[in-house]
Amino acid sequence: MTNLSTQPYKGTRDYYPEDKAIQEYIFNIWKKVVGQYGYREYGTPILEPLEVYTAKSGEELAGEQTYRFTDRGDRTVAIRPEMTPSVSRLVASRRQELAYPARLFSIANFMRYERPQKGREREFWQLNVDLFGAEGLAADAETIQLGDRLLKAFGADSSQYVIKVNDRRLINEVISGYLGVDSSKANSVVKLLDRINKLSPEEFRAQAGDIMGNSDEESIARLLELTEVKAVGDLPSSVKDSTSALYLQSLIAMLNSMGVDSVEFDFTLVRGLDYYTGIVFEVFDKNPENSRSLFGGGRYDGLVGMFGAEPISAVGFAPGYTTTELFLKNWSLLPELNPQSDAYIVSLGDNSIEAFKLADQLRESGISIEVDVTERKLDKQIKAADKKGIAYVIFVGDDEVSTGVYKVKNIKSGDDFTASLEDLRSRLVQ
Amino acid sequence: MTNLSTQPYKGTRDYYPEDKAIQEYIFNIWKKVVGQYGYREYGTPILEPLEVYTAKSGEELAGEQTYRFTDRGDRTVAIRPEMTPSVSRLVASRRQELAYPARLFSIANFMRYERPQKGREREFWQLNVDLFGAEGLAADAETIQLGDRLLKAFGADSSQYVIKVNDRRLINEVISGYLGVDSSKANSVVKLLDRINKLSPEEFRAQAGDIMGNSDEESIARLLELTEVKAVGDLPSSVKDSTSALYLQSLIAMLNSMGVDSVEFDFTLVRGLDYYTGIVFEVFDKNPENSRSLFGGGRYDGLVGMFGAEPISAVGFAPGYTTTELFLKNWSLLPELNPQSDAYIVSLGDNSIEAFKLADQLRESGISIEVDVTERKLDKQIKAADKKGIAYVIFVGDDEVSTGVYKVKNIKSGDDFTASLEDLRSRLVQ
Repeated sequence: MTNLSTQPYKGTRDYYPEDKAIQEYIFNIWKKVVGQYGYREYGTPILEPLEVYTAKSGEELAGEQTYRFTDRGDRTVAIRPEMTPSVSRLVASRRQELAYPARLFSIANFMRYERPQKGREREFWQLNVDLFGAEGLAADAETIQLGDRLLKAFGADSSQYVIKVNDRRLINEVISGYLGVDSSKANSVVKLLDRINKLSPEEFRAQAGDIMGNSDEESIARLLELTEVKAVGDLPSSVKDSTSALYLQSLIAMLNSMGVDSVEFDFTLVRGLDYYTGIVFEVFDKNPENSRSLFGGGRYDGLVGMFGAEPISAVGFAPGYTTTELFLKNWSLLPELNPQSDAYIVSLGDNSIEAFKLADQLRESGISIEVDVTERKLDKQIKAADKKGIAYVIFVGDDEVSTGVYKVKNIKSGDDFTASLEDLRSRLVQ
Repeated sequence: MTNLSTQPYKGTRDYYPEDKAIQEYIFNIWKKVVGQYGYREYGTPILEPLEVYTAKSGEELAGEQTYRFTDRGDRTVAIRPEMTPSVSRLVASRRQELAYPARLFSIANFMRYERPQKGREREFWQLNVDLFGAEGLAADAETIQLGDRLLKAFGADSSQYVIKVNDRRLINEVISGYLGVDSSKANSVVKLLDRINKLSPEEFRAQAGDIMGNSDEESIARLLELTEVKAVGDLPSSVKDSTSALYLQSLIAMLNSMGVDSVEFDFTLVRGLDYYTGIVFEVFDKNPENSRSLFGGGRYDGLVGMFGAEPISAVGFAPGYTTTELFLKNWSLLPELNPQSDAYIVSLGDNSIEAFKLADQLRESGISIEVDVTERKLDKQIKAADKKGIAYVIFVGDDEVSTGVYKVKNIKSGDDFTASLEDLRSRLVQ
């Protein structure tokens, strides 16, 4: 038999304890912050019927990127590539029972066919934050403020990231009104804006011409100008007094007065998914060497209705684990994390049972204790404690068992001492 | 467009906040207990190459029960049906770097094609506990003790469950020696024992005859007698002094002196998976109406070697989430869990920003606060707080903003009072 590979599946990642400790640190801060905003945790299955994604998520995600297969009951299913349709399904299913605004969060894994690269994996974890049953400035502002707080909770400050905002209503109004694009072509302009950072200025202009008609030079020029606008007040005068532009201006002002000072308007921000209906926002790392997108979200008022319930307004976003981890590493915001047991018990002679009893008594005080269960020689047992990075080694031999006083060695400092059970408790409790 | 179904995928389950709260309660106790034994958390991808399971897990699990498909790169992959091969892969990959005994745990989801029924789901969560690099009594005893502690940590006592133990080495010795079964048929006898609870006594006898030869009445009679043995000391005299029988006797005695008093020998316990090589054990609920298996495990010394590394001895087990939840519910061991925000802020007039500021100030003290962001009428905002089960409603109107003294209503007791920011802090901090 040939040996099996020790590598994880393509584009995925194993989390050894030192990696998992960082993940748990990040997950716990996420849970704490969203909990303080009243968000409650839910969970959904890893598989959903494929049509949940084909209906509204857009072709790229539902078609090319999704892990899909036919199950033994001939159902076409997908490993979830995102959470929004699933959480919308949950809300639709209990539309009457829920109290609104309903704040729901989950931390879950997802899969997409991606070309693996730094910060982008085929299996990825993310926090999913969604607010149902409220629309308007307060709901949108709180959502973006929470995104901001989720970064600040790790010690980040607003010089390290920027929150770009836009509004699908503004985009739609501008495309059909100010640019005069026919409704059949409007979606192509949205998709073109979504790809702007992947195209050269020439490519962007050429594709705009393909969509809008090369003869319509004025509209193309207007579109190019719009892509440079970085403040709502700098929009063309016929646009900046529209309801949706004024809404964005109020939203940004409100966020500033709520302590969110890294928020900026960007007309090119559209976010690819088809289901957005109002504000969209995206957070970018300002690290000059690494200005990747950290996370984004927006308002999607139509998804709950897809499941047959009365529509419910919704706004949400989803910070990815790996991008958050890279952001925190790049800005040196991760603490030292090396969780180890508080002490290691080495047993001598035939004293395993006594070693286990001592371990139990110490665990009752909340102390974490490893017992060396290998029945190896003493020096090998001590070496294992050292390799694990545990400081205290407690010896359990015949003398210790008869006197109740244990020899202890701090193998980091080299100190030896003796201690009773009570001494050990007071010394080892963190 | 027809509406999409709100039901989760067949045999899977949605976790609404009240369900997720129970799950988190159980996960957190699991993490605490295994952490006190020195276990460190890891994570692995949801997909593995199929051959990881076909090699050693046994036909039923790898063949019929596994969710498998071909990915876009033409790889045959499986949604993990169990964790043991994945964690063995991790250990094989870092064989030299790890300090032994290495104690590793994970809490993860798995999928199997199951006929959905109470306590059995197609997507299920379980705790995976594995000890690498130690064999012998102390390692086996600590592992079973930890299984026992994981139940006692929820308040269970040993009258509510039984831990059955056996040893594959004893089974193999008995089948080839005492029963004289040809080695080519030994595995069929093991599989027959594994199915004993699904067969009537007549069916069991008939199938034993098919395997062992109907003319071999003495061996069949011996096998039937063995299935009744409930103590190592009651094994036939030619068996009970074998190395493996004496090992089991010592293990049970050791466990009793370690406070594990619900452990029993059972010769019919084999556990279905092909990779077990030493002790096997399984915990059963003693609820007379519901004596389902809670969890099980055993020693599997050959799996790490499958990945090309030098073999490393291993022993582990995996409590399932759903069976644990049902066990705790049946024995009334679950606490009341209804996590809600500490207070609900209702804003009157144009005071959203002031409401958000107050919420922020209270969150700084660790208080969880929901702001009603709907801009609805007052009574509707209060009704939402009531429906959520939140006791305290804080009003933020023009008066409150100008004086810094807030009207507060406890909508559970009906009490009204006024409070400054400091008063609110001291009243709401848990």
